[in-house]
Amino acid sequence: MNKPLRLGIAGLGTVGTGVVKIVQRQAGMLVARTGREVVISAVCARVRDKDRGVRLGEYAWEDDPAALARRSDVDVFVELMGGSKGPAKTATEAAIAAGKDVVTANKALLALHGHELALAAEKNGLVIRFEAAVAGGIPVVKALSEGLAGNQVTRIMGVMNGTCNFILTKMESEHVGYNAMFDEANKLGYLEADPNLDVGGIDAGHKLALLSAIAFGTQVDFDGVTLEGIEKITIEDIEQAADMGFRIKLLGVAQLSGRGLEQRMTPCLVPATSPLGQLENATNMVVLEGDAVGQIALRGAGAGEGPTASAVMGDVIDIARGYRGSVFGQPAASLSKSKPAASSQPAPYYLRMELKDKPGALAKIATVLGEAGISIDRMRQYRHTDPSAPVLIVTHKTSRPALNEAIAAMSGTGVLAGEPVALRIEEV
Amino acid sequence: MNKPLRLGIAGLGTVGTGVVKIVQRQAGMLVARTGREVVISAVCARVRDKDRGVRLGEYAWEDDPAALARRSDVDVFVELMGGSKGPAKTATEAAIAAGKDVVTANKALLALHGHELALAAEKNGLVIRFEAAVAGGIPVVKALSEGLAGNQVTRIMGVMNGTCNFILTKMESEHVGYNAMFDEANKLGYLEADPNLDVGGIDAGHKLALLSAIAFGTQVDFDGVTLEGIEKITIEDIEQAADMGFRIKLLGVAQLSGRGLEQRMTPCLVPATSPLGQLENATNMVVLEGDAVGQIALRGAGAGEGPTASAVMGDVIDIARGYRGSVFGQPAASLSKSKPAASSQPAPYYLRMELKDKPGALAKIATVLGEAGISIDRMRQYRHTDPSAPVLIVTHKTSRPALNEAIAAMSGTGVLAGEPVALRIEEV
Repeated sequence: MNKPLRLGIAGLGTVGTGVVKIVQRQAGMLVARTGREVVISAVCARVRDKDRGVRLGEYAWEDDPAALARRSDVDVFVELMGGSKGPAKTATEAAIAAGKDVVTANKALLALHGHELALAAEKNGLVIRFEAAVAGGIPVVKALSEGLAGNQVTRIMGVMNGTCNFILTKMESEHVGYNAMFDEANKLGYLEADPNLDVGGIDAGHKLALLSAIAFGTQVDFDGVTLEGIEKITIEDIEQAADMGFRIKLLGVAQLSGRGLEQRMTPCLVPATSPLGQLENATNMVVLEGDAVGQIALRGAGAGEGPTASAVMGDVIDIARGYRGSVFGQPAASLSKSKPAASSQPAPYYLRMELKDKPGALAKIATVLGEAGISIDRMRQYRHTDPSAPVLIVTHKTSRPALNEAIAAMSGTGVLAGEPVALRIEEV
Repeated sequence: MNKPLRLGIAGLGTVGTGVVKIVQRQAGMLVARTGREVVISAVCARVRDKDRGVRLGEYAWEDDPAALARRSDVDVFVELMGGSKGPAKTATEAAIAAGKDVVTANKALLALHGHELALAAEKNGLVIRFEAAVAGGIPVVKALSEGLAGNQVTRIMGVMNGTCNFILTKMESEHVGYNAMFDEANKLGYLEADPNLDVGGIDAGHKLALLSAIAFGTQVDFDGVTLEGIEKITIEDIEQAADMGFRIKLLGVAQLSGRGLEQRMTPCLVPATSPLGQLENATNMVVLEGDAVGQIALRGAGAGEGPTASAVMGDVIDIARGYRGSVFGQPAASLSKSKPAASSQPAPYYLRMELKDKPGALAKIATVLGEAGISIDRMRQYRHTDPSAPVLIVTHKTSRPALNEAIAAMSGTGVLAGEPVALRIEEV
C-alpha cells in the first residue's frame, strides 16, 4: 500500500469539522477508494478550547496556520479559514513555498489572487484544488475542467449564492418585501458577517470568476465581473415578473465572444418553467454550455457542512489518487489575460418605473424608448393608489448602453417618480 | 512537451466521427489542456468506403478492430462499436492483452463483462474509462467516482434512456397512445435496431448497473436489475397520473440496505413538479444521493454525436493528463459480490384496472386490498363507456410482494376485465 496522505486542516468551522468527520467516519472507504490511508496530522483554528462535536485530541495543534502549512508531517494544506487576505493568504503562500499541495474552499482568495497562487504552485509542481469554493457540494469545477475538457465552452450560467436565492424565492412564496426576508435570512444564520458579500453578489461573483478562468482559459479576473446585488428587487418586481411567466434570480453569466469576455452577476429574469427558474430556496444550479456537449445543468446544495466537506474530500481523494491537474485546467502560465467585453450581449429587458400622474406621461416614456431605437414588446400600467403609477415595460432585444441612455433621457422628461429598475431577461 | 497520446478508434458511426471531429478541430486546445498532443493513429469500421463528412485519409485503416487494438502506434483503444459480444469484446480483450488503455461507450459490454475486463485491465496496470456509456454527455461517472468519492452513496436515481422519455412525454403533450408514439420515435431514428433495448429498459438497466457498481463498491451485476419496460403504459395511465400531480418516467433506482442491493429500472410515478418529473423529451437526468453531499442532480443530453463524443474526449483527456483511476472507483479485485435485495423498499403504488360492470365489483377489490394489509390512499372510478369501468387506486406504502399477492387474489374475484397495471410511486 502507498504511504498515507497526511492533511493539515486550517479552520475548524462548519466545513473544517465536516471534513474531520468524514476522514474519521470513512477511513476504510478512503483506503478502498484511493489505495492509501488519508489521515490528519495537525489542525489549527482561532480558538482552541471549544466543543466542536468531533475528536481532535489525536491531532497536533498549531496556533499559526502558516506553521501548520509548513509542517513536515503535512502533505496537503487544507485551507478552510476564508478571507481574501490575512492568515488565509499568508498560510497558503507558506504551504506552496514549503512544497505542499493545497485544497481550499476559499473563493475570495482565489478570485483575487488565484492567478499568482497558481503560478507559484505550478512552478513548484504543486496542485491547488478548489471544488468546495464553487457551488458547495456540486462537482462543477471537476465537470468543467475535466468532464467537459473536450469542449469549447460557449457560456456558463449559475445561481451560486443560496442566500440570495432563498430571499428571492421566499419573497415570492410568502408575499413579503426584501427587508423582511433579509431579516429572516439573517435570523437563520444564512448571511455572511458582511451581508454585502451575499446580497451584493460579491460571493457569487467570486465563484463566477473562477469558473470563467477554467472555461475560457483566461486569468481569473474578478474585477471584470459586472456586479449588481438584489437589494433593489421589490416584491412588486417579483410578482409582476411572475405574472409574465418569469422569476428573478441572481444569475451569473460568463461568455466569450469576439467582443471580449463578458462576466456578469446580476439579478435577471428567467422563464419560470426553466430549470433555473424552478430553483427553490438555498439550492444552487450551474449550467454549462459547450460546443459538443450542448447544455449540462448541475443542481445541489451550495453550502453547509456536509456538501462543502464532500467537495473538499473529492479534491483530497483526487490528490490521494495521484491526479495532478493544472489549477485552472491548463498551466497558469498559459492562461491569457482576459479582455473584458465593453458591454453585455443584447437582450430583452424588464423595466419598472413609477410615472407621475400627469397626462401624456406614458407617451413621453414611449417616445424616449423609440428614439433610442428600443422597441416595446409588452407594457402594463397598473392602477395607482398614490400620486404615481407603476408602469412595467418588456423591451425587445436591445443593448445595455442604449437602454442606459434611454433611462438617462427619461429622467429629463420630468415624468419619472423615482429611479427606474432595469433587469435583463436572460435566455436560458 | 510530453509524447503525443495516440488513439485507435474502432467504430465510425455517429459517436466515432464525432470524436474524430473534436480531435481535429480542437487540436490546439487539447495541447493546452493536457500538455501533449492527442492524435489518431488508426481507425476501423465495418465499411471503409463511405462519406462520413470527416477527413480520415491521414489515419491508418484496419479492417479488424482487434488488429487495431494491438497496433504499436496506439496508446488508447477507443471502442465505439457497441454490442456486448463479438468484435467489441474480442477487440477490447485484445487491447488489454496488448497493454492499451481503453475508452468505451459500450454499456452492454461493460454491464455484462465489466468485472472481468476491469480485473484483466488492472492486472496489467491499465485503465478502462466509460463516461460515454452512461447518460451521454453528462459527466456522471466522474461525478460519482471522483467528485462524490468522499460520500457513502445512499441512492442513485436516473432517467437514462432518452427514447423512452421522449415517448412518455410526447404521449402526454400530444395526447396519443403508446403505439403511435413508438412509431414516431422509430421514424425519427431514436430506436435501437432491437427496440426492446430501449423500450424494454435494457439499455437504461445496463447504465444503472454500471453506476451501482461504482456507488456501492460491488461487482457490476446487470442480472440483479429488475427490468420492466414502458410498453404497457397507456395514455390513460399518463393522463390519470397527471391528473393526480404525477408523471410517469422509466426510472432507474439503486440503493444498498441491510436487505441487500436493490436495482430497478421500471416505469414509476414521480411528482410532476420534481426535477425528474419535469424532464422533457430525450433529456437525461441522474440524481446522486450521498451521506455528506445530500442530493445532486445532473441533467443533459443523453445521446447524440456531440454529447457522447464530449464524454469520450473527457476520458481521453484524463488519460492524457495521467489520471489513472480504478475502472469502478476502487480496484476491481476489492469489489464485493452484491447480494440482490429480495424485494424493493416499500412504497406507495398506483394501480389501474378495469372492473366488470357488476354490482359489488369495487367492494370486492377493496376487500382484497384490505385483507392483504394494503390501505388505500385515493381511489377514483371513471365513467365507463363499455362493459368495464376503469378504476384507479393509489395505495399507502406497501411492499411489492404484498401487492403482487393482492393482484393475484383480485384475479380470483372474477370482477377484473384484463390485467391490472401496478406502478411504483417513487419518492424523489
